[in-house]
Amino acid sequence: MRSIFEVCNVADFELIKEIAIPSISKIVLLVIDGVGGLPHPQTSKTELETAATPNLDKLAGQSICGLSEPVSPGITPGSGPGHLSLFGYDPLKFIIGRGVLEALGIGFDLEDNDVAARGNFCSINDQGEVTDRRAGRIPTENNAELCKLLNGWDIEGVRTIVRPVKEHRFVAVFRGEQLAGEVTDSDPQKTGVPPEAVTAVRSEAERMAHIANEFLKRAQDALSQHQPANMVLLRGFSKHPHFPAMGEVYGLSPAAIAGYPMYRGLAKLVGMKLLNPGAGIGEEFMTLKKHYNDYDFFFLHIKDSDSAGEDGDFQRKVSVIEEVDSLIPLLNDLEPDVLAVTGDHSTPSVLKSHSWHPVPVMLCSKWCRRDAVNEFSESACLSGGLGHIPATEFMPLAMANALKLTKFGA
Amino acid sequence: MRSIFEVCNVADFELIKEIAIPSISKIVLLVIDGVGGLPHPQTSKTELETAATPNLDKLAGQSICGLSEPVSPGITPGSGPGHLSLFGYDPLKFIIGRGVLEALGIGFDLEDNDVAARGNFCSINDQGEVTDRRAGRIPTENNAELCKLLNGWDIEGVRTIVRPVKEHRFVAVFRGEQLAGEVTDSDPQKTGVPPEAVTAVRSEAERMAHIANEFLKRAQDALSQHQPANMVLLRGFSKHPHFPAMGEVYGLSPAAIAGYPMYRGLAKLVGMKLLNPGAGIGEEFMTLKKHYNDYDFFFLHIKDSDSAGEDGDFQRKVSVIEEVDSLIPLLNDLEPDVLAVTGDHSTPSVLKSHSWHPVPVMLCSKWCRRDAVNEFSESACLSGGLGHIPATEFMPLAMANALKLTKFGA
Repeated sequence: MRSIFEVCNVADFELIKEIAIPSISKIVLLVIDGVGGLPHPQTSKTELETAATPNLDKLAGQSICGLSEPVSPGITPGSGPGHLSLFGYDPLKFIIGRGVLEALGIGFDLEDNDVAARGNFCSINDQGEVTDRRAGRIPTENNAELCKLLNGWDIEGVRTIVRPVKEHRFVAVFRGEQLAGEVTDSDPQKTGVPPEAVTAVRSEAERMAHIANEFLKRAQDALSQHQPANMVLLRGFSKHPHFPAMGEVYGLSPAAIAGYPMYRGLAKLVGMKLLNPGAGIGEEFMTLKKHYNDYDFFFLHIKDSDSAGEDGDFQRKVSVIEEVDSLIPLLNDLEPDVLAVTGDHSTPSVLKSHSWHPVPVMLCSKWCRRDAVNEFSESACLSGGLGHIPATEFMPLAMANALKLTKFGA
Repeated sequence: MRSIFEVCNVADFELIKEIAIPSISKIVLLVIDGVGGLPHPQTSKTELETAATPNLDKLAGQSICGLSEPVSPGITPGSGPGHLSLFGYDPLKFIIGRGVLEALGIGFDLEDNDVAARGNFCSINDQGEVTDRRAGRIPTENNAELCKLLNGWDIEGVRTIVRPVKEHRFVAVFRGEQLAGEVTDSDPQKTGVPPEAVTAVRSEAERMAHIANEFLKRAQDALSQHQPANMVLLRGFSKHPHFPAMGEVYGLSPAAIAGYPMYRGLAKLVGMKLLNPGAGIGEEFMTLKKHYNDYDFFFLHIKDSDSAGEDGDFQRKVSVIEEVDSLIPLLNDLEPDVLAVTGDHSTPSVLKSHSWHPVPVMLCSKWCRRDAVNEFSESACLSGGLGHIPATEFMPLAMANALKLTKFGA
C-alpha cells in the first residue's frame, strides 16, 4: 500500500492555484452519502430510481449529469478517499493514516504533535499468541470500561489517551514531545503468532516505537485478568496530516455542514469552517440558508442514506432520498451559481456496504451546457453530458461553472 | 521511445495487492482475439454485427457493457500489450523485449540466463551495405534451411540456438554465462548502409555485445554463397522478464486455455497455469469445464477470429464468432461469479491487421449494475454502463464484481 509517509504531492494543484480567481459567486455541493445503489431484486430499480424525487429530477433537467468514479473502476472507497476525491484531493496521494481516520471518526481533537493509532482489543493464550484479533467482538460497553484502564498513563513524559470506538475497536493517542508516526504495527494480522514489536521506520520515530512497546507491555499487565479481551493490537500509527487548504488551492471560503464526526474531521482537514449542523436533515439545510452570505462554498453532507444502505434497508434509503428531495427547493431559492448533487460513493442496500459502482452526479449552473437527462438516477446519468468522470474532476468543473477559473495559457 | 531497460514499475499494484482478498468465487475471461471490427463496405455492419449471436446478445442483456482501450486512443496494440493490458499490467510499463516476444511466439522455452534476439535474413552488396532488410521475404522453408547453418555454434562458451519463424524472420537465442540483454541492434533500419556493430549499453552487457558481433561475422561467412539471404540483422536483444504473478498481485489461482504459443507464453509470464487446450474451439471450452473446480480465474483464448481478420476474411471471422457464440451456454452452465467477454484488440477484416479501435467488452455478475445494452457489438456497447475504459481497468472491475476486493480507506 502507498505509505502515509510519502509526502503529499501538491504539485497537481499548481495549475488550479494559478488560474483560480476569487469571486462572489457561490457553489453548493450536496453530498448524499452512498447515494448510488443497485436494483432491488423484485423491481429491478435502484433506491434512487424507486424514490419519488420530483425536485431532484427537475434539477437534473436543468443540469449537466454524469457518473463519477471516486477512486478508479472496481475500487470501493472508504469515507476518507470518497470525500477527499470530491474535494479535488487525489485519494491515492493524500493519505490519511488509519489511526488519524479513527480519531476523526469519533471527533477526537488531535493536536499537531499527537500520534494516533487504531487499536483492537484481542485475545492471547498462555504462550502470548493471538487467538482472536477481535476478542470475540466484545460489546462497546465493555470496550469503554477497558479503555479506562489504559487511559491517562504517563510513559516517560508521554500521556496516553485511549477512547472507545465500537465493539473491539479503540483509538490510542500518544501525546508528548518528539513523537513521530513512522513505526510498524504490533498487529500481526493473523492468529497463532504473538503480537509484533513496534519498530521505527525512520530514526526520528525511535522514541515513539519505544513508548508504544512500553504501552503494550503495560496494557498486557493491566488486562491480564480480563477475558476474552486480555491484550491489545495497534496499527496505523500516524500524525494529523497537513493538506493544503481549499482556501489556498481554490481561493474559496468554504464551510461544512455535517453532523457526523468523520465528515466534520475530513472537512476540517481541507480547511473548511465547521458550521453547527443542528439535528436532522432539515436543520442542516436551514443552517446552510442561515450562513449563506458568509461563505462561497458549502459542503452539505447527508449521512442517513449511507447508514440505511449499510443496514441493507432499501426502503429507509428510499425515504432518506425522498426527504432530501423535499428540501431541494430551499436550495433553489438561494439561487447558488453552482448547485451540485452527488455522493461520495455507492452503498447498495443489497450489498449492505460501500461499493465500487460509479455515483450519479449533476451540476446545475447558468453555464453548464445542459444535456437531455431529466431524471437523477444511475441509469439516466449514464447518458449525461459529463460522461464518466473521476470524482477529482468535479471541483475544477464546479469552479469553472461558477466562473472562478481564468484561462490557462494565453 | 520508452526503453525496455527501464525497470518495470510494480508500484501500481500496491493498492490492488493491499485490498485483494482470496475467495472461492470464480472469474471466467473469454478473449475472442481481434473481435472488434469495422463495417463491411456493402452492409455497413461489422463482423460482430453480422454474426448471428443469440447467446452473446442474451449475455449482454445480463451484463454491464462498454468499450475498452488496450493501450490508448489511436494506438494499435500487438498481442503482447493487448493481453498484458487485459490482465491489468500496464503495457507501457511492463515491456517484453522483441526477442523474447518472438521466442514466446514460437513456443521456445527460454531459460533464465538466455538472451533472445529477433533476426531477419537480409541482403547485402559487395560493399557490405544492406540492399534489402528482408531478403525478398524468402519462403519459410528456405529460412528453416538457413537457420540450420547458424544453429548450435559454440562461441566462447555461448551456444547459439537459431529457430525459424516465418518468411525472413527468425529467433536467435544466446545461451551461456554472464550474458545481459542491454545491447544495441545490428539492424540499421534502412538500406544503403552496412549493418551496425552491436554495442553494450551497460558494462555488464559487453560480453553479449562481443558474442553477438562474433556471431554476425560468422553468419556472414556461413551465408556468403546464399542469395538473396546472404546476411542477418539482429534486434531487440532481451532476457525473459520477471513480472509479478497474478497470484501475487490479485491473490488468484489463474489458469490459461490457449492453443497458440504466443498466448501461452504471455499467460506464463503472468504466472498462469497452462492447461492443455485440445484441438479446436469446442475442445478449449471443454478443457475449461473439466478444470473448473481447480482454479478461480480462467483465461480462455480464441485465436481464429484474429487470424481471419488478418487474412481479410470477413465471412470467416463471422463464422468463428458464431461458433464461439454457440458454446456460450456451456460457460453459463458453470455459473461463474463473473463471466466476461472481450478481445485483446480489434482486427477489422477490411484492414487485414490489428487496429486501434476500441474493443467491445461485457461483464456479467450478480452485482454488475446492468445497463440497457442487449446486443454484443461495437455500436451497442458504445452506450454501455462501463463507458469507455482503459483495458487495464478490466481486472479491478472483475475482481470487484467477484467480491474479491475489500474497501480502500476506512
